[in-house]
Amino acid sequence: MNVQLAADLAGLVGDDALVEAPEDLAAYDQAARYEGGRAALVVRPRTPASVAAIVAWCVGHQVDLAVQGANTGLVGASTADASGRQVLLSLERLQSPLEVDPVNRSVRAGAGVRLSAVNAVLETHRLFLPIDLGADPTVGGMAATNTGGARFIRYGDMRRQVLGLEMVLADAAGTIVQLRRGLRKDNTGLDLRQVVIGAGAALGVITAVEFEVHPRPAQTAAALVLLEDLEAALPLLSHMEREGGELLSAFEGMSRAALSAALAHGPGLRSPFSGPLPPYAVLVELSTTRSLKPGDASLTNHLEEVLADWLETDDGGGAIDILTGAPEPLWAIRHAISEGLRAKGPVIGFDLAFRRSDLAAFRRTAVTRLAVAFPEFEICDFGHIGDGGVHFNLVCDPEAPPTADRLSQLREAVYEIACLQFGGSFSGEHGLGRANLAQYRALTPAPVRGLAARVQEAFAHRALGAVDFAALG
Amino acid sequence: MNVQLAADLAGLVGDDALVEAPEDLAAYDQAARYEGGRAALVVRPRTPASVAAIVAWCVGHQVDLAVQGANTGLVGASTADASGRQVLLSLERLQSPLEVDPVNRSVRAGAGVRLSAVNAVLETHRLFLPIDLGADPTVGGMAATNTGGARFIRYGDMRRQVLGLEMVLADAAGTIVQLRRGLRKDNTGLDLRQVVIGAGAALGVITAVEFEVHPRPAQTAAALVLLEDLEAALPLLSHMEREGGELLSAFEGMSRAALSAALAHGPGLRSPFSGPLPPYAVLVELSTTRSLKPGDASLTNHLEEVLADWLETDDGGGAIDILTGAPEPLWAIRHAISEGLRAKGPVIGFDLAFRRSDLAAFRRTAVTRLAVAFPEFEICDFGHIGDGGVHFNLVCDPEAPPTADRLSQLREAVYEIACLQFGGSFSGEHGLGRANLAQYRALTPAPVRGLAARVQEAFAHRALGAVDFAALG
Repeated sequence: MNVQLAADLAGLVGDDALVEAPEDLAAYDQAARYEGGRAALVVRPRTPASVAAIVAWCVGHQVDLAVQGANTGLVGASTADASGRQVLLSLERLQSPLEVDPVNRSVRAGAGVRLSAVNAVLETHRLFLPIDLGADPTVGGMAATNTGGARFIRYGDMRRQVLGLEMVLADAAGTIVQLRRGLRKDNTGLDLRQVVIGAGAALGVITAVEFEVHPRPAQTAAALVLLEDLEAALPLLSHMEREGGELLSAFEGMSRAALSAALAHGPGLRSPFSGPLPPYAVLVELSTTRSLKPGDASLTNHLEEVLADWLETDDGGGAIDILTGAPEPLWAIRHAISEGLRAKGPVIGFDLAFRRSDLAAFRRTAVTRLAVAFPEFEICDFGHIGDGGVHFNLVCDPEAPPTADRLSQLREAVYEIACLQFGGSFSGEHGLGRANLAQYRALTPAPVRGLAARVQEAFAHRALGAVDFAALG
Repeated sequence: MNVQLAADLAGLVGDDALVEAPEDLAAYDQAARYEGGRAALVVRPRTPASVAAIVAWCVGHQVDLAVQGANTGLVGASTADASGRQVLLSLERLQSPLEVDPVNRSVRAGAGVRLSAVNAVLETHRLFLPIDLGADPTVGGMAATNTGGARFIRYGDMRRQVLGLEMVLADAAGTIVQLRRGLRKDNTGLDLRQVVIGAGAALGVITAVEFEVHPRPAQTAAALVLLEDLEAALPLLSHMEREGGELLSAFEGMSRAALSAALAHGPGLRSPFSGPLPPYAVLVELSTTRSLKPGDASLTNHLEEVLADWLETDDGGGAIDILTGAPEPLWAIRHAISEGLRAKGPVIGFDLAFRRSDLAAFRRTAVTRLAVAFPEFEICDFGHIGDGGVHFNLVCDPEAPPTADRLSQLREAVYEIACLQFGGSFSGEHGLGRANLAQYRALTPAPVRGLAARVQEAFAHRALGAVDFAALG
């Protein structure tokens, strides 16, 4: 712990904003699913003005600042690095405002307000923020990461919701700027908010977010469609987008290995399968905000009809079976996959995304090539395939963990197939951090990296957070 | 005409790319609804490489370049200025590629391809680009302007569709960059595409656009809801968003004066009103991609039920009557408004946008204040009020046109009420151009203008198009 640093920051924002004790630092240093880091100290301001004071001080004193919301990030952007020299700016105390405008269907919230807190407040208005995730991030973190999730196909990502950002620039003054405000239509010059969304902390610190919210569904229906392979899922997707129409709210793919891991390890999960697990399954969901009226057919009936229509088309041949039922138990399987994989053994995760038209060919190619070159890893892929997203995760035998070299060969092979051969993304929805900077450098064309470097310099005198685009330009 | 300039540009991209004859220049110089300008010459390259050569030459020779798509813009950004010295770069010949990927539901098109051409190609796939406009712009212009339109409430703006941009930077080399490609999820560093969308040509020249397209509706139903005032429309909007649910595809407001002008001047329009015109009316539309199946109730029945439910709520009291019918005649009235107003007299247009919760108060305030201070102008407002958009247009007596001073007082008064008092946008969907630069300067906070200036400098050695953010910073 740097005593002078602590004294200086305490002088700026007060003693009680600092966390210094090693035992208290752990929660800020440990990361959700990567190695984490070690902060010199943690500072937790309560107001945008305090954030501005801290940022300006760090810019002036050339002190590195890591920025953290709920510390739920997965790519090495939520914690300090391993140097022990960075100040970690936690935004968890930026809890106000939390204002709901039901007529505008919008909320303005401090960056530290959690998704669950937003949705709790919105419940009485029968509204919600429809970003559906395993974690419970802050709204500031969601904007900085451009969080996606399992209902993207209906509602899009966080970018689509954001109607305004308040942020602190990393300049000598810690200037506070407001980028757009609460309007759905506003084309009055450069929409700078848009390049801040998904930029992590590289362009500054988001202190408040205004975002659109949506009527909560009143009816939901789901089915598990068992398929011969992922390829059969794509005509089903087109059918559901047309005949399920506007009600389609999820289209999640799961490989046999992912299903198996979920069912083996998910606490209290009941298998819906009477026979052997299918090679591939899709969780299809319809939902509507319309309340069920007397005389209306149930949404489950409607989903069954739409799926029955598909079975009668030429494309329906890839189907093995269709299981309809209450949505919750089906979602429970989907949500148990990540834990199930970790229970099986060390997980090597890839957050890939493709054009939907490349999903099947990528999977075929990757499965074939990895089976030969990396037989010790089991492919347990799943994902938001309606949006082209694939969590292409592999599990290895916990008794025979791979060497670092072997792991890096595997990573290289997967990115080569996914990004170079199929034009996919190396980070569909998890963003950029220390964990995937090497891919940024290797896979982003030099003129685009140069442009990013210059844009960062336009915003910031000094890079904040885990990624310095200027250094990568 | 500058002979040397013409010779230089012809040397770069060939004689046949130039338009020099005064009679041919008119179509490029005349604007849709503003004064237009006068180009030194027009150059119409066929390839991104030729665009790059022209841009690099102009940057190197410090020649001003105006950039034009279909010349349908409304704010003084589509034509050269009045100096007669600017080169006008028309992108109308950038007609390739025009590639459809039906599984990905996406299209990649040259910047010069028109909306109508995209939709003609998509018809066989039962897909469409759902930006609904009176004009027929190019896709490059739509991305540069971030076009909105009448189905925003369902599909959003052009930003929401864009999956990738190819652009030429205004640097010494005319560097061609590709900003994202065809993926719905891709969070791999700064999303630079997002700040280019809606930036006009200030950051460079868009040469190709990749965008999401959507299944075409198979059923549509519409109704005209006659109301005591705009205030009564807002509870109806909330009701429709919940109980009309995912099928709501338009919610367009029309004042009595706008309706009257449309009906008086629209060729062949039949009035649906049996009595006097209502003070305010809303065109509500539901649509679905689901085809009508035997035994299904018609969508019109469904809409009638949803509206009947609303009449029974406490909020239904503001309704005078509900007219359901075929959508086309109702849309014909809506689409006849602009022409109708122009037929009445000189139009002073305002493309405003508000939080939906401010719409009624703004209208009340503006109508009251303008009636006193500017009685010679008739307010004929209409707009996409489901998104907060208001075309707050005024018409004056053609026999007694206002002085320039009077007009500028009127503009100032409207912007003062709309933007300062109610936090509205001075350009909801028409973008930024010479026509509203004064508002940009007056209404955008200095730190945000400074940021925009620096971001432009990060992209461009020299400003292109009608807006130089660096000069406005």
